[in-house]
Amino acid sequence: MEKDNLDSLRQQIRGVTADIMQKIQQRMDLAKQIGDVKSKMNIDVKDEKVEQEVRLAVMKQAEELGMDKDFALRLLGILLSESETVQAMGRKPTAPKQTHLGIFQKARQLEESGKKMIHLEVGEPDYPAPESVGNALSAAFRSKKYHYTETAGMPQLRNAIAKIAGVGRDEVIVTPGGRFAVFSAIAGLVKPGQEIITIEPAWPAYRECAEFVGAKARVLKTTFESQWTPDLSELESLVNGGTKMIAINYPNNPTGKTIDRKTLSAIVSIAQKHDLYLLSDEVYSEYAFGQFHSVLGFGYEKSIVVSSFSKTYAMTGFRIGHAIASPDIIKKMTKVQAVGVTSVAEPIQHAAMAALSEDASANIRLVEKRLKFVCSKLDQMGLKFVKPTGAMYVYPQLPFGEDMPIVESLLEKGLAIAPGSGFGDSYSGFVRISACRPEDELAGGLEILSSVLRAA
Amino acid sequence: MEKDNLDSLRQQIRGVTADIMQKIQQRMDLAKQIGDVKSKMNIDVKDEKVEQEVRLAVMKQAEELGMDKDFALRLLGILLSESETVQAMGRKPTAPKQTHLGIFQKARQLEESGKKMIHLEVGEPDYPAPESVGNALSAAFRSKKYHYTETAGMPQLRNAIAKIAGVGRDEVIVTPGGRFAVFSAIAGLVKPGQEIITIEPAWPAYRECAEFVGAKARVLKTTFESQWTPDLSELESLVNGGTKMIAINYPNNPTGKTIDRKTLSAIVSIAQKHDLYLLSDEVYSEYAFGQFHSVLGFGYEKSIVVSSFSKTYAMTGFRIGHAIASPDIIKKMTKVQAVGVTSVAEPIQHAAMAALSEDASANIRLVEKRLKFVCSKLDQMGLKFVKPTGAMYVYPQLPFGEDMPIVESLLEKGLAIAPGSGFGDSYSGFVRISACRPEDELAGGLEILSSVLRAA
Repeated sequence: MEKDNLDSLRQQIRGVTADIMQKIQQRMDLAKQIGDVKSKMNIDVKDEKVEQEVRLAVMKQAEELGMDKDFALRLLGILLSESETVQAMGRKPTAPKQTHLGIFQKARQLEESGKKMIHLEVGEPDYPAPESVGNALSAAFRSKKYHYTETAGMPQLRNAIAKIAGVGRDEVIVTPGGRFAVFSAIAGLVKPGQEIITIEPAWPAYRECAEFVGAKARVLKTTFESQWTPDLSELESLVNGGTKMIAINYPNNPTGKTIDRKTLSAIVSIAQKHDLYLLSDEVYSEYAFGQFHSVLGFGYEKSIVVSSFSKTYAMTGFRIGHAIASPDIIKKMTKVQAVGVTSVAEPIQHAAMAALSEDASANIRLVEKRLKFVCSKLDQMGLKFVKPTGAMYVYPQLPFGEDMPIVESLLEKGLAIAPGSGFGDSYSGFVRISACRPEDELAGGLEILSSVLRAA
Repeated sequence: MEKDNLDSLRQQIRGVTADIMQKIQQRMDLAKQIGDVKSKMNIDVKDEKVEQEVRLAVMKQAEELGMDKDFALRLLGILLSESETVQAMGRKPTAPKQTHLGIFQKARQLEESGKKMIHLEVGEPDYPAPESVGNALSAAFRSKKYHYTETAGMPQLRNAIAKIAGVGRDEVIVTPGGRFAVFSAIAGLVKPGQEIITIEPAWPAYRECAEFVGAKARVLKTTFESQWTPDLSELESLVNGGTKMIAINYPNNPTGKTIDRKTLSAIVSIAQKHDLYLLSDEVYSEYAFGQFHSVLGFGYEKSIVVSSFSKTYAMTGFRIGHAIASPDIIKKMTKVQAVGVTSVAEPIQHAAMAALSEDASANIRLVEKRLKFVCSKLDQMGLKFVKPTGAMYVYPQLPFGEDMPIVESLLEKGLAIAPGSGFGDSYSGFVRISACRPEDELAGGLEILSSVLRAA
């Protein structure tokens, strides 16, 4: 009896599944036709406005049908991305974007083949990590501290970080670099088909991680003309039922912008109002030349504050960072860490522990001085830029042309800088210059830039 | 004209989208009814056979409709997993499975609160890493080798690994642990809705990584009765149009099983016949007590061989491993690594470089001796197990009862061992004992096990 019932229901579900597939194919055929029309009209395949309308309509329908919203959005995400693929077929593929890391790999290859390179493409300080860090590394080996640790980090390191931040140990996770903190937050909290909002120009990691999990990065663009200030009403207008997170980064990479407490407070309010996670990448917090305001200060329970030992203590190649969030969020991030890496190397954790007692203020003053030096040189060259009030970068506007050809010529001449377009689609008119190197190297690099721009 | 056409097509696509959502809700309602019937009949929500039928039907239909197969499978994957969620609602949730890592975290917590623990739950050698590794670590710091490296690893380290393996440098990636090699292979090569096949009992990483990317792990179960030998015709029967990868691990964790060249060759042939990636986790290759056969020996272009410095050189807490595959596969894995971690810590890479020149054979002999010791003790206790011919574990059958209550009692008594069910759903009648510790610790641990089993 029940068995017959089960068989009949299964029969029905098969029929409905076939109907669904048929309808979806019909949708793809229509998408293809739309693609052809767009191609004739010579307009872009992507249309954010139309997509937003479709998304809102589907969410409304899902609510009426009593369908799980996340589920509806995941489905829609797949349908939309497949439509885009179908529409883009036959069109000339756009070249994959080069990021600062791509240029770094190229520069390294050139170096390996014997070329001398000035590296102003990565935020890689030349000043050394503290002596105590090296001692801790050696001591860790001598005392056999090179075993698996707790996934979220050694208790003593989590305790030490928690104490400095004024939070509990269960609100801290130690990660292999600030990047993995971003990765585990996005992968642990955002599902396929959902959305995050990034403020561009931005370090590409937020977008990359979102796309990696099958989520969408919706972009709030800021402009040189408005001094890279985010428009908060525009930010709020990007929120839809599928939005899960806002990712911010101040002091900003690549622009060096910082924001005041009032603006930050308004962003926290928007996140709170729409129940969104707020990922605040504060790896340059020590490099704020005015007063720094952390998202931590707002006590918002859905915030995730990412920090790193890389920039403050010149420990980029140690690959260690951390995040502070509610115990519940930390648990979700820890799960991702368990799947990907088990734990951070124990000797590295001991090295980071030592760094925590060090005073990095001399590093900060040095970078500030170098940034001033770069700015004065760029001024002399007549390049325009917003004066950085934090981080370690200047993001000048090119006087003409696109970033990539210029970046490529510079590579040939022995200078690596980052293309502006690596930080967002609308920024090929900019380049990012890192000011972590000694003044003579900076001067040499800027001399190359100047001569290439003059010759072009 | 074209504009009107575009508007009309968009109107149509909205209508079809609404139809799709409606049909999907209808499918969910049917799934819910099936769930209720199953509940009454007291049968499991999951039915692999039915699922396989649905999958084959959808793939057939996709082919007829000219729909992209991967796209159809992704959609189906979402529909099926949502159906499962809907059907499981109201049922008692099954407790999340404890893995060896979960027990390790618990044991660590107990230790922090002052309890003395014997750790036989993780494969963590007590013997030291080579002295040269420590020297390399210190030297790296002194010479400021703590910067970003190429994402796939330092050229000199990749070269050294490539030379030993007899491959090219572009066929090597250095990863933060063998686990991240597995992660980047699965995340880089397998898409949501697709499938991998694992042979259980197995290290849970393959399944965890597959589920992380929204893929499905289909399981070939092996049994104690057949000495954990994989049934190759059964293996082949698990392959369907959505299968992308077979993941194998010999010498095996947790059973200590090794396989002969003929069986391995047959597995390679199955992968080749169905154009599947073959992920061979060979982190215990040095710990094969008979002759070891690597998948590398078959020159199969879709194979990925994962190795680690952890086990061979007692460097578990350095978190460094590597993989060997075709340049194309390495590129895809490198992309995942760039998104997640940028690169492996440079001092750690230098340490690994030093380890490569070391002879680990004394370690291997030591573990073999300890395994024999554990086996003889288990024999004395009357426990049944397949004698391990590799790795560092014994996987005995419990004389009665389920693993978790016993593992929990053992924790209270100061012994941590791994529950069998952490390596697959069907293995709660087993536990895994790691034989990396000194004999007195092993003897102490087994004494606790013996007394707990006697008292139960």
